[in-house]
Amino acid sequence: MSELRWDPLKKHWVIIATERGRRPLDFHQDTPATTMISCPFCYGHEARTPQEIFAIRPPGPANTPNWKVRVIPNKYPVLRVEGEVKSRGYGLYDVMDGIGAHEIIIETPDHDRGLADLSIAELTDVLKAYRARYLDLRQDFRLRYMVLFKNHGTLAGATLQHSHSQLIAVPLIPPVATTELNACREFFATKERCIFCDMIDFEISCGERVVKEFPDYVTLTPYASASPFELRLFPKKHCHDFALLNDGQLGALAQAMKDMLCRLKVVLKDPPYNFILHTAPPAHQRLGKPDYWGSLAWDYHWHIELVPRLTQIAGFEWGTGFYINPTAPEDAAAFLREAEV
Amino acid sequence: MSELRWDPLKKHWVIIATERGRRPLDFHQDTPATTMISCPFCYGHEARTPQEIFAIRPPGPANTPNWKVRVIPNKYPVLRVEGEVKSRGYGLYDVMDGIGAHEIIIETPDHDRGLADLSIAELTDVLKAYRARYLDLRQDFRLRYMVLFKNHGTLAGATLQHSHSQLIAVPLIPPVATTELNACREFFATKERCIFCDMIDFEISCGERVVKEFPDYVTLTPYASASPFELRLFPKKHCHDFALLNDGQLGALAQAMKDMLCRLKVVLKDPPYNFILHTAPPAHQRLGKPDYWGSLAWDYHWHIELVPRLTQIAGFEWGTGFYINPTAPEDAAAFLREAEV
Repeated sequence: MSELRWDPLKKHWVIIATERGRRPLDFHQDTPATTMISCPFCYGHEARTPQEIFAIRPPGPANTPNWKVRVIPNKYPVLRVEGEVKSRGYGLYDVMDGIGAHEIIIETPDHDRGLADLSIAELTDVLKAYRARYLDLRQDFRLRYMVLFKNHGTLAGATLQHSHSQLIAVPLIPPVATTELNACREFFATKERCIFCDMIDFEISCGERVVKEFPDYVTLTPYASASPFELRLFPKKHCHDFALLNDGQLGALAQAMKDMLCRLKVVLKDPPYNFILHTAPPAHQRLGKPDYWGSLAWDYHWHIELVPRLTQIAGFEWGTGFYINPTAPEDAAAFLREAEV
Repeated sequence: MSELRWDPLKKHWVIIATERGRRPLDFHQDTPATTMISCPFCYGHEARTPQEIFAIRPPGPANTPNWKVRVIPNKYPVLRVEGEVKSRGYGLYDVMDGIGAHEIIIETPDHDRGLADLSIAELTDVLKAYRARYLDLRQDFRLRYMVLFKNHGTLAGATLQHSHSQLIAVPLIPPVATTELNACREFFATKERCIFCDMIDFEISCGERVVKEFPDYVTLTPYASASPFELRLFPKKHCHDFALLNDGQLGALAQAMKDMLCRLKVVLKDPPYNFILHTAPPAHQRLGKPDYWGSLAWDYHWHIELVPRLTQIAGFEWGTGFYINPTAPEDAAAFLREAEV
């Protein structure tokens, strides 16, 4: 069983994923990458993955071909779904059993098409799968936060080429989310406005970091981008919870997402990237007490963060928490705005 | 001029290093790495670097060969030393001029020897250079924190092969340091003990994460290691400030450092790594007010952090601030302890 361990000095949690246990020479860089004889995510190989949790497909049996989007548990999960969330002290530290969920969303049956290559209808189906998994997992009161992300390209951490995203549900609100949730709460407490809404208004009025504006969505490069060509996709109207979107809203989002992914692909020649869907945590209870964040989370503003992996996190970044970005976001926005898509 | 930009949602600073300005295709992964015709850090090429700031050498003129350790300004600094620290608001954000210092410590004249290959006497000279630069830079009241780090290997961010470390002085206490300084202050406030001292005592009494104990130093794998084979080197006796060490103490540190670097090199076959020297910030004044951290920093405990770069930071880590480590630190310590050095 994995363990979550708390570092009382750095104030962060680490998942010691012992079931993935690796010995010194497993890390050796000269070891050739494992080559798949055939891809487990392609049609006809459904039996090689764990049983599907969700799929969008025409009427027919599960775990057979003809699906459009397929969701399966990760065969090598970092957190396991079975058991109770047990937390205890150990010396100065804290440790918690590694309970959670780790799912794979296979975005297309086509081995060679990336997310940017999907049609708006196909992308809408992917978003519907995301929504369905959020709505299902938040019924499990042990799971406090869900992070949906995509690693595209080897340099961004992808180990299988076939286009997929991942959803990890964790038994704690993670620090990155807590920081943003706190910022929203503090801003709202004094101003009774959403900090994200203010930021979006400011950016649209400035214009120099706006990449593309749609009726309901806007894509921009953040003023304090930590890395070159970072992007954010925001709904223009305040909404804290991605899972509340109806099919029409998902369709409009798919259009804005495809536009963002295509611009990135053209300008940077299909770079490695990570995207993360940031949304409010579910309203949960533990020990019978109402959840603090759950009840206040309407002051959050869901969005998609996209980080191309073009620079390295080295000693300075790790040692300080400062990031160095060699491309001004105003320049990145100009390049992306001018892309022909 | 670079800018430091504040992200009010993620609560971190980003350095927009526009002088390193990069356009989209500069990031393209297929671009071949620049090959140096000859190394600017080798003997005889002193004129190809900026004028030296400090050197350990026999009596003789500066910027000529025969040095043992040489410190120069970075030719492409992320922060510039000229100017005043000016900070201002911009919309919801904050921005500060990119004032600071960025120096390179060339650790050896030998192009092909790494830090682990140096003798204890040579390593002591490197540490003396570190101390000299700390003591000098802290006289500049604009500089609030110095981070000394090393990127070893391309995957750890090194761009030149010749062994060197870097010192960046920044006009703010960075978030990673603030978090640790706060943890120390809070712990001391209630217990009148150093949290690091308690942790070191606990680890030495447990033993399972201790790699090597010396009379004055101890090397261990942290309980909540964020990545595999992470190491910390601590002075066993409380001391907040690396720059206070005398020559004898630096010699003993060099012995412990060489042991740590050699174990890592043997067990992981010379892996890429970052090391960071964490020490208390200098006592400074700005606007005539005494510095809060400077005056309390004696509750900090200086140490060296070494992070082999064996796993990738991908969407999950970036999106949550959780880290996944597939090797338990107890196992890593056992491998390192058994290494023949």
